[in-house]
Amino acid sequence: MFSVTVRDHIMVAHSFRGEVFGPAQRLHGATFVVDASFSRPDLDADGIVVDIGLATDQLKAVLGELNYRNLDDEPAFAGTNTTTEVLARTIADRLADAVASGALGAGAHGLTGITVTLHESHVAWAAYERSLPGGTGGGAA
Amino acid sequence: MFSVTVRDHIMVAHSFRGEVFGPAQRLHGATFVVDASFSRPDLDADGIVVDIGLATDQLKAVLGELNYRNLDDEPAFAGTNTTTEVLARTIADRLADAVASGALGAGAHGLTGITVTLHESHVAWAAYERSLPGGTGGGAA
Amino acid sequence: MFSVTVRDHIMVAHSFRGEVFGPAQRLHGATFVVDASFSRPDLDADGIVVDIGLATDQLKAVLGELNYRNLDDEPAFAGTNTTTEVLARTIADRLADAVASGALGAGAHGLTGITVTLHESHVAWAAYERSLPGGTGGGAA
Amino acid sequence: MFSVTVRDHIMVAHSFRGEVFGPAQRLHGATFVVDASFSRPDLDADGIVVDIGLATDQLKAVLGELNYRNLDDEPAFAGTNTTTEVLARTIADRLADAVASGALGAGAHGLTGITVTLHESHVAWAAYERSLPGGTGGGAA
Amino acid sequence: MFSVTVRDHIMVAHSFRGEVFGPAQRLHGATFVVDASFSRPDLDADGIVVDIGLATDQLKAVLGELNYRNLDDEPAFAGTNTTTEVLARTIADRLADAVASGALGAGAHGLTGITVTLHESHVAWAAYERSLPGGTGGGAA
Amino acid sequence: MFSVTVRDHIMVAHSFRGEVFGPAQRLHGATFVVDASFSRPDLDADGIVVDIGLATDQLKAVLGELNYRNLDDEPAFAGTNTTTEVLARTIADRLADAVASGALGAGAHGLTGITVTLHESHVAWAAYERSLPGGTGGGAA
Repeated sequence: MFSVTVRDHIMVAHSFRGEVFGPAQRLHGATFVVDASFSRPDLDADGIVVDIGLATDQLKAVLGELNYRNLDDEPAFAGTNTTTEVLARTIADRLADAVASGALGAGAHGLTGITVTLHESHVAWAAYERSLPGGTGGGAA
Repeated sequence: MFSVTVRDHIMVAHSFRGEVFGPAQRLHGATFVVDASFSRPDLDADGIVVDIGLATDQLKAVLGELNYRNLDDEPAFAGTNTTTEVLARTIADRLADAVASGALGAGAHGLTGITVTLHESHVAWAAYERSLPGGTGGGAA
Repeated sequence: MFSVTVRDHIMVAHSFRGEVFGPAQRLHGATFVVDASFSRPDLDADGIVVDIGLATDQLKAVLGELNYRNLDDEPAFAGTNTTTEVLARTIADRLADAVASGALGAGAHGLTGITVTLHESHVAWAAYERSLPGGTGGGAA
Repeated sequence: MFSVTVRDHIMVAHSFRGEVFGPAQRLHGATFVVDASFSRPDLDADGIVVDIGLATDQLKAVLGELNYRNLDDEPAFAGTNTTTEVLARTIADRLADAVASGALGAGAHGLTGITVTLHESHVAWAAYERSLPGGTGGGAA
Repeated sequence: MFSVTVRDHIMVAHSFRGEVFGPAQRLHGATFVVDASFSRPDLDADGIVVDIGLATDQLKAVLGELNYRNLDDEPAFAGTNTTTEVLARTIADRLADAVASGALGAGAHGLTGITVTLHESHVAWAAYERSLPGGTGGGAA
Repeated sequence: MFSVTVRDHIMVAHSFRGEVFGPAQRLHGATFVVDASFSRPDLDADGIVVDIGLATDQLKAVLGELNYRNLDDEPAFAGTNTTTEVLARTIADRLADAVASGALGAGAHGLTGITVTLHESHVAWAAYERSLPGGTGGGAA
């Protein structure tokens, strides 16, 4: 299995509902350093997993919809805690949509999995790994 | 599959038996930067993998039994080389016990896997990945 | 010159006033990974720059007054942009007060400089370096 | 599953053929920081995955055949784009040959998987994961 | 003293003349992860060292003249070894020119120093620190 | 001012005397990731601060006298706490001796400063900066 990963980041405000979150129930914020991994069992004819330029651009586009915002005000997350885990899934699903739409190039249809990792600090991070339609699943190492 | 990882560290002395260890047969020491990853296929009702506060506390508690010690003197490791691999398994198993005991909260019973990675330097690390009873296995990405 | 540095972090919300800030004029947030460096020309009788346990505790105490908050609502910052630079100075000055108050131990009176670095992402950070009263200045390496 | 990872690096020149590579079609270069992970389900009698000294030496030997070279001139890559993905597979396959030849020690025959990750910058990396003959597959976390 | 640092990278080919360089006399390459630090004794009216957006843009512009190239073919370096040290100075000097030209904004005229650090691998880096005309010197921490 | 830094590491056991050290009075250990920075105001005729190959070799030689040892048993440290700060000074002084002896090459006589940083974990490090005889002082950034 091959994978390619690109890194970018967002800076957002949000708050959580639920006693389990303790002081994070207050409005606070985070920088999420985001790693998006794309995987597939074989390389394409150019010897790549995905066009890394397009992957970088699409990750930036997906993150651009979240960046420099208060996520408590975003309709897409109404009634949902925007935990690191939830954001990882949201970003992975939106990247999967971008793959399906052709935005990562024709070769990207060979992709079988996406893993998105969000680093919220030097001591905590979360990841979500999913398969892609048409792929047989299996995320990046 | 979702995962959440928290990081902490220990500083220990130890020595190894066996020619394969070369100069590490002498009493020496290590800082192990420890990453504990908890995984599960779905999020709980709060939108999380595990209470990250409890996960951090329990990792600190497990590491507290090892920290600032000469592992050669610890009865739990009598007759065993405390290699990075062995320590990763020990920490993972003790965290699994903590999950089973309820110390990571009721929601943690949905966890299916734990991976523990010990970084012994900037150029070497080891990991151990295990499933949890009741879970279907599968470690973190 | 010797220095000792300890690392911790905060997660805050804020917004900026001024066209120079572009989209960061919106309410957003950041994780700041904070490095506090303490420096002095000579070591004390124990062979240390500062009691690293007290330094860690005092950094946590200073950060605790900022953590999990919307800085736009903090009276201490009324009328001030809480830029990474401003926060670095605030944290350094509060640590300097802690040194003066004796909270870092009697030996800490030999400290001559403090440098605080705030990492706002994997691609941007800011630092503030200051001398301590009684010290001759000189920041950390 | 256990894994052990060692890190080293190479500094190479190369160019790519194919419009997808944009400006990287020009002769340029890269530092690849290389992580080689060895995995197996159980530890050997010494409590290790692999002799880390031999693993480090063999990784250095494999990288020595690539280091400080223009990969466009290497016969082994004639007609092939030396993408990060292709190099990850090449290094993993050569390490697998080293395992088979006994160069990582007799205990290394218990290895079941190798994953090689090449970091080409602070914002991009690629990995290749493969099973080993006699092993049941499954790479490192 | 305050500083702000931004990070970007280049991927270049080159070779060195001189026996001291050993195998690096061959055509090879490197990824240089580049940290550009801007410093000044006081903040401007917005509470910043420099417009971080402009600093990021100008660093990218300066690096764009070097990126994805064989530096042996660049007239600017004719007769000069493009060592990490030389490249750090070149980038710092070009950023100083950008400051002087107003490309980092009017506020940037308060800058007194620039430090550029080039990381060539996980185990080696070089830096060049210089003052700015009109400034009293003093680089970033 | 220019600097070049190389990184290596040691794994040692030790204990401390003094109540300030708390649990670190027990025999424990540490991995120290060691950064040795060499600085000078101008480059030599080859365009370098120091022969990076010799610098790497000499750092390894100096560290080899400490590595895989219990520092409590080393005569050189009798009656001295081998704190991170003390070890940083010891390593810097031994590197200064190596420079004076010619072990870093003839060009190294232009060096004016050495800074040694020891990372004891992901959240703590210490540094010692010194001038070199014949040099005018001033350590690396």
